[in-house]
Amino acid sequence: MKAMVLRGKELTIEDVAKPTPGPGQVLARVRACGICGSDLHAARFMDDMIAASRMSGRTAWDTLDQSKGMVMGHEFVAEIVEAGLGAEEWAAGTRVTSIPVLMAPEQPNGFLSIGYSPETPGAYGEYVIMSAPLLLRVPDSVPDRVAATTEPCAVGLHAVREARMQLGEHAVVMGAGPIGLMTLLWLKKEGVGHVTISDYAETRRALARKLGADLVLNPADVVVAEEVAKAAGGAPPVVFECVGVEGTLRQAMELVARFGRVVVVGVCMKEDRIYPMVGINKQLTMQFVLGYSAAEYAEALGALADGSVNTGPMVTRTVTLDELPAAFAALADPHDCKVVVLP
Amino acid sequence: MKAMVLRGKELTIEDVAKPTPGPGQVLARVRACGICGSDLHAARFMDDMIAASRMSGRTAWDTLDQSKGMVMGHEFVAEIVEAGLGAEEWAAGTRVTSIPVLMAPEQPNGFLSIGYSPETPGAYGEYVIMSAPLLLRVPDSVPDRVAATTEPCAVGLHAVREARMQLGEHAVVMGAGPIGLMTLLWLKKEGVGHVTISDYAETRRALARKLGADLVLNPADVVVAEEVAKAAGGAPPVVFECVGVEGTLRQAMELVARFGRVVVVGVCMKEDRIYPMVGINKQLTMQFVLGYSAAEYAEALGALADGSVNTGPMVTRTVTLDELPAAFAALADPHDCKVVVLP
Repeated sequence: MKAMVLRGKELTIEDVAKPTPGPGQVLARVRACGICGSDLHAARFMDDMIAASRMSGRTAWDTLDQSKGMVMGHEFVAEIVEAGLGAEEWAAGTRVTSIPVLMAPEQPNGFLSIGYSPETPGAYGEYVIMSAPLLLRVPDSVPDRVAATTEPCAVGLHAVREARMQLGEHAVVMGAGPIGLMTLLWLKKEGVGHVTISDYAETRRALARKLGADLVLNPADVVVAEEVAKAAGGAPPVVFECVGVEGTLRQAMELVARFGRVVVVGVCMKEDRIYPMVGINKQLTMQFVLGYSAAEYAEALGALADGSVNTGPMVTRTVTLDELPAAFAALADPHDCKVVVLP
Repeated sequence: MKAMVLRGKELTIEDVAKPTPGPGQVLARVRACGICGSDLHAARFMDDMIAASRMSGRTAWDTLDQSKGMVMGHEFVAEIVEAGLGAEEWAAGTRVTSIPVLMAPEQPNGFLSIGYSPETPGAYGEYVIMSAPLLLRVPDSVPDRVAATTEPCAVGLHAVREARMQLGEHAVVMGAGPIGLMTLLWLKKEGVGHVTISDYAETRRALARKLGADLVLNPADVVVAEEVAKAAGGAPPVVFECVGVEGTLRQAMELVARFGRVVVVGVCMKEDRIYPMVGINKQLTMQFVLGYSAAEYAEALGALADGSVNTGPMVTRTVTLDELPAAFAALADPHDCKVVVLP
């Protein structure tokens, strides 16, 4: 089958072996797959990712042979083609998605990530393997390009839930990329009265306005803290850091109110600098979040299906598989928001 | 009266005006005052402290005239000499302590810190002013040198309470200085089954053993993570960072278990570097704590009085006021633990 392969820092379209579903698995034809920031990171900063993983006490990537080639892609919706032993209840043609892991009881944590190892190819290709017990049927009301946003939508939901927003609290979201916008959508859905979002890119600010932000700021033009205080009556009790570059953590700590929470959703690949004294003076909590639970993933899909979370406007472009390497390069400049591959 | 004055980075013994108690205040003769790490910081890094305060949105120090001279000292026990208007219930000779603030309704936050402004001299002098409603009588069972540890004892209590330790959790305390040891004492009092403490200084490790640590490590000799895992059955769910120098936050993040909490008690005066990816991979919470509540202060004094927290061994030296500047210089080398001035 055709797929985009990452080898070192090279992205190429190649013909790779079509995978075969094992027991409890299904083979599905990819209908759509979103480009995730983590994939952009992996293509550029794989060594940093591996180093950080090691510092985190994980060894999963210690044996990764980068020359082997890896098919990424973990924000997918696909159509079942073939069911493995014991997965026969899943009829060919059913549109499904799942959290991007394969059940693997022999692994220390019981699963393998889809799209981050040469052995478990992701959905930047024509076909993908999924574990039947993890499958979710995609309701007809959700078009492919929207179903492909289930995964980042679940990331936003998880970040918002972990923040444990309380009645009367307002929030600032730093960064109006896909994850920042997903966070915004869930904050509004959960009933947060005032959400500010900041971004340097006009196209992303326009999206934020469309998606219901109460205040949209360009940090190049205004002092964010002052505008937020004016509009929301004080410093934000909660700041979601959804940028993930050096320096934004420090800004979040300065922006947030005393006794506030900084929820770190953005993934900075490099060493970063903070002033611990600011954290202490304000008695902050800094909460690093990652991923979502299977239940949150299902809840995100449900919200897309009933229309209570509308991620549609976020998909600013679709590309074919052949166009995917070029799309990766283009995303270095944040003109687009979420780009979805339709293989 | 005689007092030690901080002017710029200079510490000198001088004759300063004896303060007069206002309404609702008492004048008390200082019986003992502990040397706090924050005072050492203030004498060396005042500019950093002011800068961090400003970054934290505070302006209290913006008008601080460092040439004016400041009497520090906020870990005190004192004996009432004279009561101001409305404070007559406090008889001369009563031994008291209080949280180190003066009630000041005209201030934005309602109080003024004792010992950190030229206008509110602390207890590195012969006399100190306190607010009567904040006074706590020191029970006879608590000698002066122990009563002077009430304040850091409350800091340890606050740190432990903020960590919300759960049944079955073990903890690592990085740093066996006074705050690390206070944290250790409260962890053991609260019933934490296994507490590891690490420090480079043998004198402090010896104290930690005496005060009930289950495992005492020298990071120069062993890999702390390995020893903790062996002794306590896994990575620590909670790490208390009680050192406060560059690099320890990063070590704490690497040491703590997945989904763990790093409680930041040590005050690093400089910019520090962390790897956000480690926080994200492990889904950590980093909790910056400061001070204590008035209730915690009273609880700390109660625990000293009933003997359930024994800080006595921590006071390794007492000095006179005249010896205080030299004691400040000597504490750069952590041979001593808590040093108490008996003016």
